[in-house]
Amino acid sequence: MASKSKKAYDELIRRSKEDSLLGSCASLLGWDERTYMPKGGSAHRAEQFALLAGMIHEKATAPEIDELLSEAEGSDLVKDPRSAAAVNVREIRWNYDRIVRLPKKLVEELARVTTLAQPVWVEARAESDFEKFRPILEQIVQLKRQKAAALVNGEATYDALLEDYEPGATIEELTRVLGGLREELVPLVKEIVDSGRKPDASILTRDFPVDRQEAFGKAAASAIGFDFDRGRLDVTTHPFCTGIGPGDTRLTTRYNKNHFSEAFFGIMHEAGHGIYDQGTDDEQFGTPMGESVSLGIHESQSRMWENFVGRSAGFWSAFFPKAQEAFPEALGDVSQDAFLFSINFVRPSLIRVEADEATYNLHILLRFELEQALISGDLPPGDVPGAWNERFERYFGMRPPDDAQGCLQDIHWSFGSIGYFPTYSLGNLYAGQFFEQAQEDLGDLESQFAKGEFRPLKDWLTEKIHRQGMRFRAADLVREVTGKPLSHRPLMDHLKTKYSRLYGI
Amino acid sequence: MASKSKKAYDELIRRSKEDSLLGSCASLLGWDERTYMPKGGSAHRAEQFALLAGMIHEKATAPEIDELLSEAEGSDLVKDPRSAAAVNVREIRWNYDRIVRLPKKLVEELARVTTLAQPVWVEARAESDFEKFRPILEQIVQLKRQKAAALVNGEATYDALLEDYEPGATIEELTRVLGGLREELVPLVKEIVDSGRKPDASILTRDFPVDRQEAFGKAAASAIGFDFDRGRLDVTTHPFCTGIGPGDTRLTTRYNKNHFSEAFFGIMHEAGHGIYDQGTDDEQFGTPMGESVSLGIHESQSRMWENFVGRSAGFWSAFFPKAQEAFPEALGDVSQDAFLFSINFVRPSLIRVEADEATYNLHILLRFELEQALISGDLPPGDVPGAWNERFERYFGMRPPDDAQGCLQDIHWSFGSIGYFPTYSLGNLYAGQFFEQAQEDLGDLESQFAKGEFRPLKDWLTEKIHRQGMRFRAADLVREVTGKPLSHRPLMDHLKTKYSRLYGI
Repeated sequence: MASKSKKAYDELIRRSKEDSLLGSCASLLGWDERTYMPKGGSAHRAEQFALLAGMIHEKATAPEIDELLSEAEGSDLVKDPRSAAAVNVREIRWNYDRIVRLPKKLVEELARVTTLAQPVWVEARAESDFEKFRPILEQIVQLKRQKAAALVNGEATYDALLEDYEPGATIEELTRVLGGLREELVPLVKEIVDSGRKPDASILTRDFPVDRQEAFGKAAASAIGFDFDRGRLDVTTHPFCTGIGPGDTRLTTRYNKNHFSEAFFGIMHEAGHGIYDQGTDDEQFGTPMGESVSLGIHESQSRMWENFVGRSAGFWSAFFPKAQEAFPEALGDVSQDAFLFSINFVRPSLIRVEADEATYNLHILLRFELEQALISGDLPPGDVPGAWNERFERYFGMRPPDDAQGCLQDIHWSFGSIGYFPTYSLGNLYAGQFFEQAQEDLGDLESQFAKGEFRPLKDWLTEKIHRQGMRFRAADLVREVTGKPLSHRPLMDHLKTKYSRLYGI
Repeated sequence: MASKSKKAYDELIRRSKEDSLLGSCASLLGWDERTYMPKGGSAHRAEQFALLAGMIHEKATAPEIDELLSEAEGSDLVKDPRSAAAVNVREIRWNYDRIVRLPKKLVEELARVTTLAQPVWVEARAESDFEKFRPILEQIVQLKRQKAAALVNGEATYDALLEDYEPGATIEELTRVLGGLREELVPLVKEIVDSGRKPDASILTRDFPVDRQEAFGKAAASAIGFDFDRGRLDVTTHPFCTGIGPGDTRLTTRYNKNHFSEAFFGIMHEAGHGIYDQGTDDEQFGTPMGESVSLGIHESQSRMWENFVGRSAGFWSAFFPKAQEAFPEALGDVSQDAFLFSINFVRPSLIRVEADEATYNLHILLRFELEQALISGDLPPGDVPGAWNERFERYFGMRPPDDAQGCLQDIHWSFGSIGYFPTYSLGNLYAGQFFEQAQEDLGDLESQFAKGEFRPLKDWLTEKIHRQGMRFRAADLVREVTGKPLSHRPLMDHLKTKYSRLYGI
């Protein structure tokens, strides 16, 4: 009965869209919480989130969905696995089977606790006082362990949590890929440091008035293709990008009057996320075909615009004169080469979000290892500062002077995102491989950037990735777009080419 | 069975709180729409509102509520009509019986259309092009007529819509009260104009830098008692105040570099609303005992702080020196008396929100009359500009030069608020009567203001009004607080005293 299964499918789509619509209300609440909400609104916001999370969960786990799925799965609609219908059915099924295992109470409790945790984290970080954060971190870890156990038959595994962000990812595979990367990265970093060459990094810590940073950052984001009629840019503590829905994508950043890179590369990064979001198919909003593949693929877009474009010689051929115009006091006497070198300074550093392209992945490795231990129960949350500092010293040869610059630096755990960090490194790897392919398809990209032409790359990404929605899972998408399985080779090649030029190695 | 009715009551309260919690998500979406939402987000926002409105409506009209109410109504819980339980049951019943008559489709459609209408209104107003707004205004009027008809057995009456904002209000009573007011106001305004005395209003249109306007306005709002840890102030096109929930109350304003009054009295006004909101009982949030009585009573609070306090000689004894400090170029050479006179300039003018205390109510009367005709069907929406201008000339002796300064000036109709305007004049009347009583209870308020003491008045309002929630309907509250039924006498006395001093009449 084609018509019965078509009806079932249509009803699935209607429900999926409605659930996403409700989810998009929660997204706006989340954006507001981190940009404008007054301090006093935190408890009420937690109640709002808990209510919405519970309602969304209830809708998404309605037993009718199982029936509708079964009806659609048995029909011709899904015969071609690449068709929109087959993809939507496959992903709605995957999500349903997954979340139906989670008790509503747990979902609500996670929403509530992780909302309450955020101002606690902000304060603990500001005062560098881990003990302030510990009790609520313990609650969060406990809840996440419960969640992991509910997802996989009673055993709290990190893999189960990874799949919230990167469906299909496993500890085993990540350990292999990140391990492989580390093996080549560590000697590269050593070579760079041993080269004895260093840029004048003080260029970037001169006086950069905030209003001009904002204007300059927005101009760059517009130039690479972010549409401000369909989005905006605000200030927050821990920058993020959130897609509210079609026509409404929001970037955030933080400004440091005495550090150019923080806001600028942050904006380029979030704009990369935003361009992905704006590139998805509005018509498919609320269904898997209108969504992003995974956080790792999302991160590949932000990394590409931040690093592969934003730290390239080509980009600054076009933008350095504009930067000098915007910041004549700070950059008037600086050469383009000196500037380019300064934004590509490789050195061990404390803060992940300020790390260079080379050492960045070591920051991720550290978090990846601690998170596994937190979820397995090997590491009690109270021992995080010690474990962090000890491991940090091993990887970076130095100890954080305080927890604000150590284990309290990231917001992620406060909102319950455990298993999220590895997607950042995956993003770097995907970006390397996509960029290599784009070069092959589009010709020399750097010379296009030098002319201020970003449209070819943006359109290529939109066609190959953004408009595909979830047609392919991450590993398959990489193969589909580049013809090869994921490898760390393109990323390493990119880094080696760039740094050999700059550091003469 | 006391325990069965107690259970029913508790469940009613749980549902009421949950419904309000969901409503508060919609409030945040509304705030965002009018402050930060990018242009492109409008269509999606309309879908979000429609979904939430439908869900809220469904929750609030569940047949179980009728059963729970019946159970509670028959019990001892409601014996004392002033008890919290009796009030909550009474008001939940009133609301239930009212909205259960509205089809969910109509509620969703109203939410959707009125969201879509707002950017249309903004554009039409900016271009002073009524024809741009007409089609969607026609839709809105049509939907509101359907709503009115559904509320009262098939007949589209304006009374039914009034009750959305001022439960218990009727055309008849409003006509009587506003008519009485007009009879005394018109000669007073004439006397003032005929006095030949005029302040130097150009003082207020000098250069007032926006950032200092913001700081000065926030300082004043804080001084009168608005708590910025539990609220904020943002910029919008048409200022409003919205309570998101306990600890989160949001004011908005708009700044005009060359007009002091617009933002300042706007902030005082919205802060008055905000203080009401912050003064309600957080514990009772989401139940009638934690809500405001009516829009008219709400407006009495904003009017009181804006006009009775903010335009008083006492207030400026404390604040004029601060204003001179904040705006030395504009006010350095101005005397306190000249300033006070300038902010109490009475004259016929085009824009309601900029009107003085005396002529303001004539603006309301005009809208009150046109709205009745729109809902009865006597006035097709397309004829609004003509009807507006003709009536405006009759009341004010001049014609608006364009629709932006005429019938397009207010946002209200674009979001479907027909029946809302009269509450502004009711607010003035209530404010007059409350203020007179507060003077009686607290002694000379002006001399307190002159010393920067606003706490006694604020605490008095909080105790007598804010903390009472909906214990009393508006008319009863007036009698309860002042011992007298509503009259226009206190407002007229206030105006006559003030203006006789300023205009020597």
